[in-house]
Amino acid sequence: MTFPVVGMVGGGQLARMTHEAGIPLGIRFKLLSDTPQDSAAQVVSDVVVGDYRDLDTLREFARGCDVITFDHEHVPTEHLRALEADGIPVRPGPDALVHAQDKGVMRAKLVAIGIPCPRHRIVTDPADVAAFAAEGGAGFPVVLKTVRGGYDGKGVWVVGSEAEAAAPFRAGVPVLAEEKVDYVRELAANVVRSPHGQAVAYPVVESQQVDGVCDTVIAPAPGLDRGLALKAEEMALTIAKELGVVGHLAVELFETRDGRILVNELAMRPHNSGHWSMDGAITSQFANHVRAVLDLPLGDPRPRAGWTVMVNVLGGDYPDMYSAYLHCMARDPQLKIHMYGKDVKPGRKVGHVNTYGDDLDDVLERARHAAGYLRGTITE
Amino acid sequence: MTFPVVGMVGGGQLARMTHEAGIPLGIRFKLLSDTPQDSAAQVVSDVVVGDYRDLDTLREFARGCDVITFDHEHVPTEHLRALEADGIPVRPGPDALVHAQDKGVMRAKLVAIGIPCPRHRIVTDPADVAAFAAEGGAGFPVVLKTVRGGYDGKGVWVVGSEAEAAAPFRAGVPVLAEEKVDYVRELAANVVRSPHGQAVAYPVVESQQVDGVCDTVIAPAPGLDRGLALKAEEMALTIAKELGVVGHLAVELFETRDGRILVNELAMRPHNSGHWSMDGAITSQFANHVRAVLDLPLGDPRPRAGWTVMVNVLGGDYPDMYSAYLHCMARDPQLKIHMYGKDVKPGRKVGHVNTYGDDLDDVLERARHAAGYLRGTITE
Repeated sequence: MTFPVVGMVGGGQLARMTHEAGIPLGIRFKLLSDTPQDSAAQVVSDVVVGDYRDLDTLREFARGCDVITFDHEHVPTEHLRALEADGIPVRPGPDALVHAQDKGVMRAKLVAIGIPCPRHRIVTDPADVAAFAAEGGAGFPVVLKTVRGGYDGKGVWVVGSEAEAAAPFRAGVPVLAEEKVDYVRELAANVVRSPHGQAVAYPVVESQQVDGVCDTVIAPAPGLDRGLALKAEEMALTIAKELGVVGHLAVELFETRDGRILVNELAMRPHNSGHWSMDGAITSQFANHVRAVLDLPLGDPRPRAGWTVMVNVLGGDYPDMYSAYLHCMARDPQLKIHMYGKDVKPGRKVGHVNTYGDDLDDVLERARHAAGYLRGTITE
Repeated sequence: MTFPVVGMVGGGQLARMTHEAGIPLGIRFKLLSDTPQDSAAQVVSDVVVGDYRDLDTLREFARGCDVITFDHEHVPTEHLRALEADGIPVRPGPDALVHAQDKGVMRAKLVAIGIPCPRHRIVTDPADVAAFAAEGGAGFPVVLKTVRGGYDGKGVWVVGSEAEAAAPFRAGVPVLAEEKVDYVRELAANVVRSPHGQAVAYPVVESQQVDGVCDTVIAPAPGLDRGLALKAEEMALTIAKELGVVGHLAVELFETRDGRILVNELAMRPHNSGHWSMDGAITSQFANHVRAVLDLPLGDPRPRAGWTVMVNVLGGDYPDMYSAYLHCMARDPQLKIHMYGKDVKPGRKVGHVNTYGDDLDDVLERARHAAGYLRGTITE
């Protein structure tokens, strides 16, 4: 056995941070990137520029890789099956990944294995949406999602009437209707599972969204009932096992006002809700994802600090983030900045900051100040 | 101001780990490497293969870099001056770096600024070595060092008689004689200094050598007298300031049997005695070196754990280190492995492991077991 080559499909920030975590393991990292300027392509030695939707490109890329993994969930299922047929381990594999690609398949599977979900069904047109709203007794609003292709609030609509329900159907893809859950907050349960079935659970975190985009993550989720936390971890481990996930699985959850936990979304790759682990856990989600896809024993997922807070840095009106380092680093010598090498565009995730410590208010204030200063919304 | 390009001369493991630490800052990293297979060249996107002893190669490399820094101290001083004359910031600069390149210059400067050193002087031939031995009253053994080019015990001789003192003179380079210090243990004081004069001191560590090569580092140095620790930190900060160091400075020290601290060697780059900081400090030596050469505010150097232990992984007789991961990771889920992508050759530094915790015996045992297992000297 020699040091293996991990093939990463996708050149975004998740690939960039996975490469960073793979360096200490001495493994070789090979990247399939859309452009040479992509976030990960800037920092990886072995980069193939090509289109992951093209099977020949994927096959050529996979030659010489010991395993293939992903920065996103958009590789067509049939391509993954073709790679597997070629004898290349694909982790997570197509049978697992389809649950993160297709929300209809995901809901059907979760119901079948007894995981609590919001009330939902596939709907065919606006009138059917109105019927779905009436079935629940609560009426509108209703959440509509295209079953494929959505992320960060894209492909999701909250509609207040039958008239408003036309838009999601225009793309001609199946639409899933879900009840608008009355939730107190959003949580995320992150787990990592390896091919031989070992799995580890990170502490359940609170995830605060702004305009459908993750803004702040607090690890562990403050004030979360111990029983609910265990239930959420157990739920994520069950999903990972039953769906045959290999690598990192993020389970986004609603904590309802009546004390239940419902699954919102699944992601089968390192996830924004796990970025805190880079500085706040003994083993980061990225390190454990690499270990899992290589079928190495997993690292300890426990926290290293009482509280860790992650705040995303979104592109603002102020493009010069580097000069903001002077203020941020001088103000907080413990601040952890993670920038992705991406051009600043309004609303685009271009980095995140982590802070940790024993006083949650202090940790939150430091992270929010730094992220706001980098974005340009705080100027003092 | 846009994200800067840091030019790193030298493709060894220090460059590799500096790149790893630079990724989160979003900076661009450009590498001048002897071969495309060098440790850092395997993981960096922008690599120039060339000879750092050739000024034209250096000048071509430096074009487009905002600052030049180093993985080693072997770049000729006149080349560094030429780069500076071209307007490229060189950090550390040639006037500082000469103290890490030439042990004669280093000793003269330390004496001039009042830093305690072993008794020493330049010697001209074996008879002069005998005279030096007699001058101190203690006689032989005496330590002889070529003033330039030594590392990891190479270029150093401990001689017991005038007859044994011939070898060091054969290379035709100046030889420095030093008293054989009666020391209890070796320590290292690591500091980082930026161009605008900010400096931070890491806790003083104990450094255990085997056959002249660093084997184990314990942070902080167990049982070190608080006054001596402060004195060592202050000494390192003084040296950094007086020599005009920019970046990381490692000061290797002897703790003498009679309670003094004497300077053994200086290194002006991230150093083996600081590798513990990757997992054991709030800000690693590599992250702070990058921040320093970019004149960014420095990060907090304080420890994150009660004890952190680093043990080097040397090449042994058993070349297949990757398969040893299975045992090491399963035995200790908190273990931190750092491999350098280097071919295994007996005695070669190919990686290191870090462990941390509150119980020093446990932390030491875990690190030594893992390093020994990776090397192949422990097989259970």
